[in-house]
Amino acid sequence: MPSALILIADGTEEMEFTIPYDTLVRAGVAVQSAFVPDLKSDSPASVNPPAAKGSRGIRIIPDTYFEAANLGPQCSATDSINFKDKFDALIIPGGAKGAETIASSKDVQDLVRAYLDKKKIVGMICAGSLAALTSGLPNQPLTSHPSVKSHLDSKFEYSEDPVVVSGNLVTSRGPGTAFPFAFKLVEMLCGSGKRAEVHGPMVFPSGTPW
Amino acid sequence: MPSALILIADGTEEMEFTIPYDTLVRAGVAVQSAFVPDLKSDSPASVNPPAAKGSRGIRIIPDTYFEAANLGPQCSATDSINFKDKFDALIIPGGAKGAETIASSKDVQDLVRAYLDKKKIVGMICAGSLAALTSGLPNQPLTSHPSVKSHLDSKFEYSEDPVVVSGNLVTSRGPGTAFPFAFKLVEMLCGSGKRAEVHGPMVFPSGTPW
Repeated sequence: MPSALILIADGTEEMEFTIPYDTLVRAGVAVQSAFVPDLKSDSPASVNPPAAKGSRGIRIIPDTYFEAANLGPQCSATDSINFKDKFDALIIPGGAKGAETIASSKDVQDLVRAYLDKKKIVGMICAGSLAALTSGLPNQPLTSHPSVKSHLDSKFEYSEDPVVVSGNLVTSRGPGTAFPFAFKLVEMLCGSGKRAEVHGPMVFPSGTPW
Repeated sequence: MPSALILIADGTEEMEFTIPYDTLVRAGVAVQSAFVPDLKSDSPASVNPPAAKGSRGIRIIPDTYFEAANLGPQCSATDSINFKDKFDALIIPGGAKGAETIASSKDVQDLVRAYLDKKKIVGMICAGSLAALTSGLPNQPLTSHPSVKSHLDSKFEYSEDPVVVSGNLVTSRGPGTAFPFAFKLVEMLCGSGKRAEVHGPMVFPSGTPW
C-alpha cells in the first residue's frame, strides 16, 4: 500500500489539506498528517493535543507531529517516526500563513530535498509551492497560487497550468485545482485505473475538466 | 453578516464539510460547526473536547456541540445557543455513517423543519439528503448521492442535477458537487456578486462548469 505524508500548520488552507488527504485515502493510500509548529509564535496550543487552526477557522487534529521535540512532552511519542523513510509521497498544502510556517522550516526543506533525491513524489499546492524556493530546488517547471507568483517566476519555469508535473515534483494552484492535483497524485502513486475507480463515486458534474 | 450552522458527526465526509464551510467563510458568512453525537455509540470521545472523526479519518474539532446536554460537562457551556434562531442557514454534509447519525437525530429533524418554516436556507449534500426523508419534508425536487437514491426516489421528485434548489431547500450529490453546492449557498446568502468575488481567487481550471 503506498503511503503519503501531508503537512499541516496553523493557517493551512483547509480544502487544500482535506481534498488530497481524503482522495488519497479513497485510493487506498495510507495517509498521515503531521503538524508543523510555528516556532516564532508565543501563543500556546489552545487544545491538547495541539490542533491546527486552518486559514478559515476549521480546527484539525493532526495524526502526528513534525519537529515533535519542539512541542513539549505531550507530543514526544511521535518523535520516533522516521519521516524521511516512512512515506512514498510528501504533500505541502497552501494557505498563506500555513505555507510560510511550513516552507520556512529547515527540517521540512531537508525533507523536500531528501524525498526528491530518493525519487519519491513531492506535491505542493497554492502558496505551498514556496517550499520549492526555500528548499533551493533547481530551475524547473512549476506553478503556484497567483498571489505568490512574483516570488517564484524568476527562479522557476513558471506555468499557469492547473497541475504541473516536473519529474517527481507536482505543483498546483489553489482550492479550485485541489481535485485535479489530488487525482494526479493518485495516478502517480496507484495508477490510472485507481484514479478512475475513485473518481466515479465522487459524482463530478458532467463537463468537469478532470 | 449572514450566518450558517453546519453539522458534523463521526463519519461525516470531510470534503463535504470543509468545502461549504471554507467557501462560506470566504464569502463573509459567520459559520459555526456543531457536533451531533451518536447516541447509540458506547465508545467515549477519544479527545477532550470531543472531535469528529471523518469518513476518511480526518479529525475535526467542532466549534460547538448540538445536543450538548448528552455530551457531559465539558460541553455544557454551549447549551445556551439557540440553534433555531441564531443562524440563517443550516447545512448537512454526507458521509454514510455521519449522515445516518445526523438524519436520525430528532433534534436535527426539528431544526430542519423549523428552518424551512422560517424561510431559512437548508442545504443537504450526498447522504445528508436523507435528513429530508427523516424530517418528513413534503414531496419536492431533490437530489442525493446515487448510493441513497433508492431511499428517496419514491418520496421525492428525484433529480440527477448536481445542485437542486426547491424553494429554500438546496440539495447536492457528493464531494464532486461540493463546490457548486457551496457557491449556490453563497449566492443565496450573499448574492451573485459575492459569488464571483469568492470564485476568482480559488483558481478553478478553465472550462470548470461552475
